[in-house]
Amino acid sequence: MKDTAAPVPPSDRTRVRRGAEKAHYDEATLHAIVDDAYLCHIAFSDEHGAHCIPTASWRSGGHLYIHGSNGSRLLKQLVRQTCCVTISHLDGLVLARSAFSHTMNYRSAMVYGRFEAVEDDAGKHAALEALMDKLAPGRQAEIRPGNDKEYAATTVLRISLAEAACKVRAGGPNDDEEDLGWPAWAGVLPFARARTTPVADPACTVAAPAYVRDWQTPDAALAPIY
Amino acid sequence: MKDTAAPVPPSDRTRVRRGAEKAHYDEATLHAIVDDAYLCHIAFSDEHGAHCIPTASWRSGGHLYIHGSNGSRLLKQLVRQTCCVTISHLDGLVLARSAFSHTMNYRSAMVYGRFEAVEDDAGKHAALEALMDKLAPGRQAEIRPGNDKEYAATTVLRISLAEAACKVRAGGPNDDEEDLGWPAWAGVLPFARARTTPVADPACTVAAPAYVRDWQTPDAALAPIY
Repeated sequence: MKDTAAPVPPSDRTRVRRGAEKAHYDEATLHAIVDDAYLCHIAFSDEHGAHCIPTASWRSGGHLYIHGSNGSRLLKQLVRQTCCVTISHLDGLVLARSAFSHTMNYRSAMVYGRFEAVEDDAGKHAALEALMDKLAPGRQAEIRPGNDKEYAATTVLRISLAEAACKVRAGGPNDDEEDLGWPAWAGVLPFARARTTPVADPACTVAAPAYVRDWQTPDAALAPIY
Repeated sequence: MKDTAAPVPPSDRTRVRRGAEKAHYDEATLHAIVDDAYLCHIAFSDEHGAHCIPTASWRSGGHLYIHGSNGSRLLKQLVRQTCCVTISHLDGLVLARSAFSHTMNYRSAMVYGRFEAVEDDAGKHAALEALMDKLAPGRQAEIRPGNDKEYAATTVLRISLAEAACKVRAGGPNDDEEDLGWPAWAGVLPFARARTTPVADPACTVAAPAYVRDWQTPDAALAPIY
């Protein structure tokens, strides 16, 4: 995949140096990578050094959101410092004819900035409903909604997606000319995230709604991302 | 999934505080999580602050390995400081009857320590061959092997897995007693990493070896991790 839009890094921090031809700085690429993920990894520091914490994330407009208990050390630290949020999707193993030309196909996004708390009730409700909509569209209307105590015990943070860079590697192997005759199979072994058979809670007597019935990936839909 | 072995965190830094009942400190859990991943995320800092970089990783014995070009800023920084390496697998969305009881099933591992360079030729060869064995067992014998120049241009780093902690969430929703009667479907929407149809390089005339022919996940094998 080649850049189509001219790459314009939003900051010196997000300018991709290694494999710069794989860099993307456009919003469409960034949003697609963020929206395809349920988890991000966040790098931050405290008195013990660097930490890399995985946590649920979702996008609403130009921000990435996370949430957790008010007591979370992660959330307390994040509003005090600049951090880096990374999302990665592994799409395949790229098998070249030469050992050192092997690589992987992936889509990754790195976001730099500082999280801010969503303090107002309306904003907090909207953010957590956006998460539920991402997990299972329409489910918010079916479940026991959060009460004031639950909302009050929960911190919602968001970070702007303005300072971000993506890296995307797609397609087949790029062997050097002189290796093309080597008699080894060459190509891509692709991955896909499959949605497998839902498992109902044994105590559940409610019929499965559409988002459960339609959850499982049809076999034919497991096409490689290539 | 409950702890079976008595949890003994190797350090204050790896003691899990939130959701401590999900913590695992045993080698078998750690190795299984690392071995099921092709990528890790590494948190480290430089003069610009914290960074979270995804990179290919593999295990050999009690170490996690990464590699890259000698020119890589990441690799240069990593031997100078303590960092945190995290691997996460998302296994499912856990739909509870109450909004705030929703969660995810996952397996994650966090490793703390400092990377060291694998300097000797034999160690470097063995490490990179272990990576190839992970990607495609037996392939090392088929491809054009690395030459001295390629090995010399490549840095291999490893980090001990001694200081690590895992967190695992599995199974169905845990609603509070008073929410169990709420008429919402409850259960797990599972994910699996599917291996989809291999894509041969158009110029490839070599027959697919067994690891390519057997790559694709049989539909029946896409069982939920639950």
